[in-house]
Amino acid sequence: MNQTIKELMERKSVRVYEERVIEPEKKAAILEAALQAPTAGNMTLYSIIDVTDQKRKETLSITCDNQPFIAKAPLVLVFVADYHRWYELFCHYEDVVRKPGLGDLMLACDDALIAAQNAVVAAESLGIGSCYIGDIMEQYETHRDLFGLPKYAVPAAMVVFGYPTKQQAERKKPERLRPEAVVFENSYRRLDPEEFTRELKRIQGREEDFEHWVKAFCKRKWNSDFSTEMSRSMEAMIESWKKEE
Amino acid sequence: MNQTIKELMERKSVRVYEERVIEPEKKAAILEAALQAPTAGNMTLYSIIDVTDQKRKETLSITCDNQPFIAKAPLVLVFVADYHRWYELFCHYEDVVRKPGLGDLMLACDDALIAAQNAVVAAESLGIGSCYIGDIMEQYETHRDLFGLPKYAVPAAMVVFGYPTKQQAERKKPERLRPEAVVFENSYRRLDPEEFTRELKRIQGREEDFEHWVKAFCKRKWNSDFSTEMSRSMEAMIESWKKEE
Repeated sequence: MNQTIKELMERKSVRVYEERVIEPEKKAAILEAALQAPTAGNMTLYSIIDVTDQKRKETLSITCDNQPFIAKAPLVLVFVADYHRWYELFCHYEDVVRKPGLGDLMLACDDALIAAQNAVVAAESLGIGSCYIGDIMEQYETHRDLFGLPKYAVPAAMVVFGYPTKQQAERKKPERLRPEAVVFENSYRRLDPEEFTRELKRIQGREEDFEHWVKAFCKRKWNSDFSTEMSRSMEAMIESWKKEE
Repeated sequence: MNQTIKELMERKSVRVYEERVIEPEKKAAILEAALQAPTAGNMTLYSIIDVTDQKRKETLSITCDNQPFIAKAPLVLVFVADYHRWYELFCHYEDVVRKPGLGDLMLACDDALIAAQNAVVAAESLGIGSCYIGDIMEQYETHRDLFGLPKYAVPAAMVVFGYPTKQQAERKKPERLRPEAVVFENSYRRLDPEEFTRELKRIQGREEDFEHWVKAFCKRKWNSDFSTEMSRSMEAMIESWKKEE
């Protein structure tokens, strides 16, 4: 296993940071690695908002499902799926230009996440921890106004970065599903609840109280306010993207 | 610059491959690196279809905007945003379970792309080239049937892999936009078409015939059949995801 793959294997989310700024040259390297990521048609269908303002970090720590550690992260990057500049450019040079559609939206989201993961991998190689905040997809209208986003630029992901505390660095990485449960040859394979239960029991280390665990997990991750809000928010975002004006 | 960041910086798409299989242990390392990627709530909200069947590769080389090199790639992975197994599990253990919404869809797409980029980075570190095929988001119905995907499992990305030919290895990586055009502090900054034109002239190396270039690019990438199809297809996918049954 080479050093790069070792880092990919060992990387885990870090939510508690040392009180230590990320050196400017390391931050620049993280951003440059993001910008060098694969991008559809070399179009860079995303923008990155570098949130340095403490007030905004505090707002995000509330709007993103009340997670105070966001406000304490020394580096907060929002990856925005962005067709704004290309659409404006096309309209500037051409008379007949179709409106951005949902394929464009999804392609730009892909671009944004690919770039985000390059930032995460670069940070890891520099000893800097990170955590994805999917909750940036909640409260679409609030985040749009907070960052002044135009119609065809929408938040796809947020990542917060910082040097891990000793406790975080030593924390065991949660086990992942095995390839047998995720990688299928040529056709999709439906895992029935019994088989998936066996897999989850293994990685969660819960044999006896699995039913209790899964019910609590469902309540916390699925039948939960943040989760319902994320779907409302993304439906509003998609409606806005589609709307003729 | 460390080795990992060097690889992130130098990685470029590879579309022509040596006639050489990818060694099983290297393929396993690529898949394992993907599975160790960050994933929301440690839920692994994706599946990977490993397309080994030559007939299916040939089908994909047609359905994904007629790109014959897809059929020649020794490794073809489709990353599927997947809530199927979790939704089935929740329904198995709980009486009242909300339906997957568009927030869940977007979160699963994020997960799928993060895993895909780990696969790309792992491959690069092993000397194996790769190319994203966004066109997997076209022809939703065809790809759903081809892979036997259930309702809450949808293609988010495809990546093809192979050892680069000498010519491909030596090909210059296309220049990317500079941070000034993509990374904004605290608030989004709208690039007007004049500023974006200056940026693109620089990276495309086209001073004299920029208008000609941009019109041809718009025709090829935007006002084009594949692009219209991708938006139709993703609209159909999203409608299917939302549909009450």
